[in-house]
Amino acid sequence: MTAGVIGGGVIGGGWAARFLLNGWDVTVYDPAPDARHKIDEVLANARRSLPALYDAVLPAEGTLRFAESVADAVHDAAYIQESVPERLEVKHRVLADIQAHAPDDAVIGSSTSGFMPSQLQQGAARPEQILVCHPFNPVYLLPLVEVVPSEANGPATRARCLDILNGIGMKPLLVRKEIDAHIADRLMEAVWREGLWLVHDGIATTEEIDDAIRFGFGLRWAQMGLFETFRIAGGDAGMRHFLAQFGPALEWPWTKLMDVPELTDQLVETIAAQSDAQSGQHSIRDLERLRDDNLVGILRALKRTNWGAGALLNAQDERLVEEPDHAQGPTQTVCRQVPRSWIDYNGHLNEAHYLELFSQATDRFMELIGADQAYVATGRSYFTVETHLRHLDEVQAGERVRVRTQVLDGAGKKMHLFHWLETEYGREVATGEHMLIHVDLRTRSSCPPSAAVASKLAAYAARHAGLPRPEAAGRAIGSRA
Amino acid sequence: MTAGVIGGGVIGGGWAARFLLNGWDVTVYDPAPDARHKIDEVLANARRSLPALYDAVLPAEGTLRFAESVADAVHDAAYIQESVPERLEVKHRVLADIQAHAPDDAVIGSSTSGFMPSQLQQGAARPEQILVCHPFNPVYLLPLVEVVPSEANGPATRARCLDILNGIGMKPLLVRKEIDAHIADRLMEAVWREGLWLVHDGIATTEEIDDAIRFGFGLRWAQMGLFETFRIAGGDAGMRHFLAQFGPALEWPWTKLMDVPELTDQLVETIAAQSDAQSGQHSIRDLERLRDDNLVGILRALKRTNWGAGALLNAQDERLVEEPDHAQGPTQTVCRQVPRSWIDYNGHLNEAHYLELFSQATDRFMELIGADQAYVATGRSYFTVETHLRHLDEVQAGERVRVRTQVLDGAGKKMHLFHWLETEYGREVATGEHMLIHVDLRTRSSCPPSAAVASKLAAYAARHAGLPRPEAAGRAIGSRA
Repeated sequence: MTAGVIGGGVIGGGWAARFLLNGWDVTVYDPAPDARHKIDEVLANARRSLPALYDAVLPAEGTLRFAESVADAVHDAAYIQESVPERLEVKHRVLADIQAHAPDDAVIGSSTSGFMPSQLQQGAARPEQILVCHPFNPVYLLPLVEVVPSEANGPATRARCLDILNGIGMKPLLVRKEIDAHIADRLMEAVWREGLWLVHDGIATTEEIDDAIRFGFGLRWAQMGLFETFRIAGGDAGMRHFLAQFGPALEWPWTKLMDVPELTDQLVETIAAQSDAQSGQHSIRDLERLRDDNLVGILRALKRTNWGAGALLNAQDERLVEEPDHAQGPTQTVCRQVPRSWIDYNGHLNEAHYLELFSQATDRFMELIGADQAYVATGRSYFTVETHLRHLDEVQAGERVRVRTQVLDGAGKKMHLFHWLETEYGREVATGEHMLIHVDLRTRSSCPPSAAVASKLAAYAARHAGLPRPEAAGRAIGSRA
Repeated sequence: MTAGVIGGGVIGGGWAARFLLNGWDVTVYDPAPDARHKIDEVLANARRSLPALYDAVLPAEGTLRFAESVADAVHDAAYIQESVPERLEVKHRVLADIQAHAPDDAVIGSSTSGFMPSQLQQGAARPEQILVCHPFNPVYLLPLVEVVPSEANGPATRARCLDILNGIGMKPLLVRKEIDAHIADRLMEAVWREGLWLVHDGIATTEEIDDAIRFGFGLRWAQMGLFETFRIAGGDAGMRHFLAQFGPALEWPWTKLMDVPELTDQLVETIAAQSDAQSGQHSIRDLERLRDDNLVGILRALKRTNWGAGALLNAQDERLVEEPDHAQGPTQTVCRQVPRSWIDYNGHLNEAHYLELFSQATDRFMELIGADQAYVATGRSYFTVETHLRHLDEVQAGERVRVRTQVLDGAGKKMHLFHWLETEYGREVATGEHMLIHVDLRTRSSCPPSAAVASKLAAYAARHAGLPRPEAAGRAIGSRA
């Protein structure tokens, strides 16, 4: 599958990165002399962070090509994203050029933050092919994309568009009615205006306003948004009670938003100087990486609670996990990238995350023998009772690793597993030997597994019986015998 | 130290919980018949989540007392927080009652979200004693508190107030000029009005608006806020460029905020019904816990990057860590609560987090022998090469655990450690045996430690030499010899 990306700034580059890292080929057209350089920078950031969101491996990266013309970029594209400057006549010209050369059934999304799809479709050859797909920076990490169709877009186009965006791990939000600036930018614009007034009136600096957000309601909004948060504030009496209690405040003089602050030279200077004082010690490149590390951490935390953007990632993980190849040797149970957040002060994969990898391997192996979430829900599981780890070599952030698993013993209540951790080039970096016992989750004491699980485990044990026993199995610390 | 809490709803209860869990005694006055029940509920939530933010143990919980009158609640309080309904005449009456009985040097903070401190101080006996301390729900988790003084508040009161709030782990944001609704609520109010219009006009449902926030800019705002995020959007050209590029959009018709939506019965009904459809499957109690688990996860993720609210927590951890008692036995290296996010599908502490605890114990032991962050910065450290874990018993979310550490060998390049993991009642739940090697971080190969580290390690080895050698040391998996 090929995506055509027209306009290669931060947004276009982010689209290119998201498609590439999800296995699409991408053709970029941008006449700017530094377009290649900009895309390379965004792509480097994306490679550093997007794979770290997943606990499975993404498809092999697609091929990036720079085209000499719009025609060259779109002629074989299934999806085309336009991210050119926010001037309607420019958009019209580019969209006409795209439609002159793109396949009739390609979806054409526009990154516009302000224009409505019906405006973009004016004078188009095939209006039904064009709709707004408005993403959020960094496009390679933030899942939201506002999909805004007009009445000209039929159900088939809408469905194909949502399908493609879901496939590259995004959260397409289908907007019911077209409106200037869609939804999210209207909300942000409201805060932006209020923030500008606060700076203008000397109430707060840019840093104080940012602190008022990120130490407070910003943390709430990262997971529940506005209305669900207020629902909680209403307590058991619910949303009607909340509205009755806080509604009157809408009439209070809590805003200057009836007016628009004028961006005088003086206000621009004030904001820029305050922003320098707040963040000037970091380069933009540093800030991007700090932001991305924070976002990866936050998103991975939401995976743990399987909530919001984290639930989206977990669903994508399930789609990404590969079935094992039983051809030969131990069974592959993990294949993934090492997130930066797993690196410690020694500059390498922290010891606890070696065990996290082996724990994921054990979970996956349990799935393979039918001791999966559904089985656990019936009140049975395996508990690890003993573990022996050997750290043979260091692992860096961003390295792709895999775990292969050999059953040493799989009869009765016992499951004795041996895991190898290797980098993608076959460098052995650790081993884990694990004794597990099957338990009844109600009594928390040992019991035999179900017949189905016992039989699948026995099949794996038989498959692995011919493999050499790992030299390190049964070793104690310090012994080299 | 005693805090007086006047008004015990969700906000007052949150204040009570934050003070109690940070070791203060708290006296609550609230004449409502269900006040005790409400505080108990908030306190249960707080006990479940606040300690999970820290990697050290909080002080012993203070004593909660319910008072029969304002006088009884405040007479011996060093800090008093007023959280009564948002009606100025009610606030004036309660503040007068507080001042009639409180110590002259107590700080009186008001939770008001709308009133300015000079309004609260009208007619007060000692205006300089009263200032706005506006927190955010859940008060026990969100660090932000807007501290708004008027000109009547002298530097001593301001400093004492900030000191106390810092001490209970909050992020006091000192607001330069008093203004209706302070800073954060003005920003939220702006979004709230815009959100109400979007629902009113049928553009989006409450769930769609929440999704537009939590899958997009909400994730950005949890860590960088508004201006720092936009600074990045401006790229290397900086904030001036961003303002030049996006300034004109301020004039575009992207908002209806010049007007205020009327909360008609019909709009209330629409919002309430949409909110029910979005979140009605969860009780408010469930939503609170989901929210708290998400917030703990997000905040702990920000600890990893040492950023914003996470950096605040790390600084608090450093203040909380206790010096070891060398009186007898192995050295205590960890004392902490088990966060809910460390629990797996088996309903107990996940195996990887057993090793995380032992890894924290090793880090702490390294600090104790002088192999701390400053030492690592000189290019030397210890790497774990081998680990043997025995999982002896289960650990539940919220349990307080400690690790005690015995040096088995500490000479030359080797450091052989044995860790015991116990619950606070002395139940042994795991052991970890770890072989570490001292390394040069530039060459990544082994080398002897500095003389200072070697000598401190030798002192610990000598101190532990008289202890019995742990039976499990040197064991291989499956051996019971």
